[in-house]
Amino acid sequence: MRTTVGIIGGGPAGLLLARLLHRAGIDSVVLESRDRAYAEGRQRAGVLEQGTVDVLRACGAGERMGRQGLVHHGIELRFDRRAHRVDLSSLTGGRTVMIYAQTEVVKDLIALQLADGGPLFFEARALSVEGADTERPVVRFLRGGREQTLECDYVVGCDGFHGIARNAVPEAVRRTYERGYPYSWLGVLADVPPSCEELTYAHSARGFALHSMRSPTVSRLYLQVPTGEDVAAWPDERIWDELDARLAVDGPWRLERGPITAKSVLPMRSWVIEPMRHGRLLLAGDAAHIVPPAGAKGLNLAVGDVVVLARALAALKETGSTAALDAYSTTCLRRVWRAEHFSYLMTTTLHTEPGQSPFATRLQLAQLDRIASSTAAATELAQNYAGLPFG
Amino acid sequence: MRTTVGIIGGGPAGLLLARLLHRAGIDSVVLESRDRAYAEGRQRAGVLEQGTVDVLRACGAGERMGRQGLVHHGIELRFDRRAHRVDLSSLTGGRTVMIYAQTEVVKDLIALQLADGGPLFFEARALSVEGADTERPVVRFLRGGREQTLECDYVVGCDGFHGIARNAVPEAVRRTYERGYPYSWLGVLADVPPSCEELTYAHSARGFALHSMRSPTVSRLYLQVPTGEDVAAWPDERIWDELDARLAVDGPWRLERGPITAKSVLPMRSWVIEPMRHGRLLLAGDAAHIVPPAGAKGLNLAVGDVVVLARALAALKETGSTAALDAYSTTCLRRVWRAEHFSYLMTTTLHTEPGQSPFATRLQLAQLDRIASSTAAATELAQNYAGLPFG
Repeated sequence: MRTTVGIIGGGPAGLLLARLLHRAGIDSVVLESRDRAYAEGRQRAGVLEQGTVDVLRACGAGERMGRQGLVHHGIELRFDRRAHRVDLSSLTGGRTVMIYAQTEVVKDLIALQLADGGPLFFEARALSVEGADTERPVVRFLRGGREQTLECDYVVGCDGFHGIARNAVPEAVRRTYERGYPYSWLGVLADVPPSCEELTYAHSARGFALHSMRSPTVSRLYLQVPTGEDVAAWPDERIWDELDARLAVDGPWRLERGPITAKSVLPMRSWVIEPMRHGRLLLAGDAAHIVPPAGAKGLNLAVGDVVVLARALAALKETGSTAALDAYSTTCLRRVWRAEHFSYLMTTTLHTEPGQSPFATRLQLAQLDRIASSTAAATELAQNYAGLPFG
Repeated sequence: MRTTVGIIGGGPAGLLLARLLHRAGIDSVVLESRDRAYAEGRQRAGVLEQGTVDVLRACGAGERMGRQGLVHHGIELRFDRRAHRVDLSSLTGGRTVMIYAQTEVVKDLIALQLADGGPLFFEARALSVEGADTERPVVRFLRGGREQTLECDYVVGCDGFHGIARNAVPEAVRRTYERGYPYSWLGVLADVPPSCEELTYAHSARGFALHSMRSPTVSRLYLQVPTGEDVAAWPDERIWDELDARLAVDGPWRLERGPITAKSVLPMRSWVIEPMRHGRLLLAGDAAHIVPPAGAKGLNLAVGDVVVLARALAALKETGSTAALDAYSTTCLRRVWRAEHFSYLMTTTLHTEPGQSPFATRLQLAQLDRIASSTAAATELAQNYAGLPFG
């Protein structure tokens, strides 16, 4: 098999890239290792930056999002039993975020791709990328029990943190950067209308909590738990009690309880590989970088990568110039490191480390108090949260 | 001996408080444990916030500062061999900082106090504060080999980190917060015109460096060194070479060398005691809080404390209300924690920890790049650096 751009991974990065290339008249093949049901069922992020929303709309994936997504103009911070709203719109010249689950984005993109796009193969497991530094890179993959090859002009690794694409970047060339965190998130879905109108991030001596939502009738809730925590330790009652304690403010707010339909533990990691390009292999999304989820940046970073990449490939097609493609890694990494820093800051400002010093807690509260009382500090948070230009 | 306000410590906090009280018609006595020459010789900070400058002027200590101080409208950040200027003035609506050494401020305040103020006793070593929670607190002190007592309405501890005043706050009441840093500063004075027009803070893989100045002919230079470093390990040549390496940028900048006249190692610590008031004992300046020097906040925090305190004591005298005095600790601590956070952030963004991970270094550079490219981030830095309102 032969294509212009071989895309490894049918998550949001790979699927969106395929759409963008299709619109630019560039053919591609998407290889997804799992079946469609699995790919459409993966629960992930749910906060889309304005720029992400704009791109999804531009490539035809905005219809259901427009109907079902929730446009949010702000977020709420809770600390010291106080609630403070950060007005994203007024602080960023009108930018908003969209609450629309990644899993829904994937469904929309898969439907579009199957309707009018290039090939999207499920259960096609990429094994290796060969000849990344040649003119004709090849993806070896397994499909229907048979090993096949996909010959490409370019190969894009959108195969996530556990993907194989980046193995084709020689050890001597690549450099990885990493940080762990001594806590995880227990994430639950509950069939109950959200008790907060906007995403609510709570700092508490008991640990971080986040009240989010999937729809007007489904709440998405997170609790900081120790790394390695067993969900079995968290019966529903304990989850609600803990959310109640961590989200508590002085005043009349009330947390509504309801049936919990899913529970999982999400580990937390910061991780970056440099460079994001080696020869004709390009990495995008989680295959190149991971952020902890508190900044809501993971999916949006992936979208930024593929937007930059699609523009570069379109420029190459139109002008023959590889300048934009040559700058791909540098262009993306600047935005990636910005998001890494922001995600790190949100994470370490809001979570309580095991054995955290009282001094460190006071610093967290001082920073939250500053955001609540200074336009400059709130603007810096809002710009990062609502999303910076794709570059 | 008897006075309205007994002030322990003849550093800038105690001396300025005495001046402010004098102007409000409130009598005070200042007890300084060292002799005048020593008190006037202590080398400390040198960056005065606009608010500090305004207060010094208002109480008559602005004349020599106005002639000899250097008004700065910005600072420079260096990282990745780039130089970026933060325009404090334009980012803060016109605020500036004044380069004028603390040791000069102290000389000016001592001269004023001796000329027309209340008693200022040198070599008067405070031993204890008694009856802090009574109507008549007493300072016991040693002077001329004889133990004496100073009976007061209020006692103010301005006796620094090693002072004795805060021992009168019972253990059960006070809480301390602390953080150490695994590095110190080697500070040197050199008889050479500064090679930078403004304070220049350099991030480098070799460690932090700061190019500062005392006057148009005297440079004040700092190098990050390991904690516990012996100055003997730093002959002049090595200091200049290291400054050259850490301050290097791509471009024509040149570091001028000259005779080094003083070298010392400054340890680094964040530390706060709460509350800053117990009964009729009030703590101000370094007696209540220490910041690492990278934010240039130590002296300015002390000034903020005594401004708030002098206002509160003046209000008490005029109206009989203790409301402002009762709020003293809360009012100051909010500003103190803001400065603790800012100082921590400046310190940890600019210094390289022993064994620092490449990820952490990348985050530092991402934050510096953000300051260099975003008005919101630069404004947040500039407001904190130029100084927030005294509250």
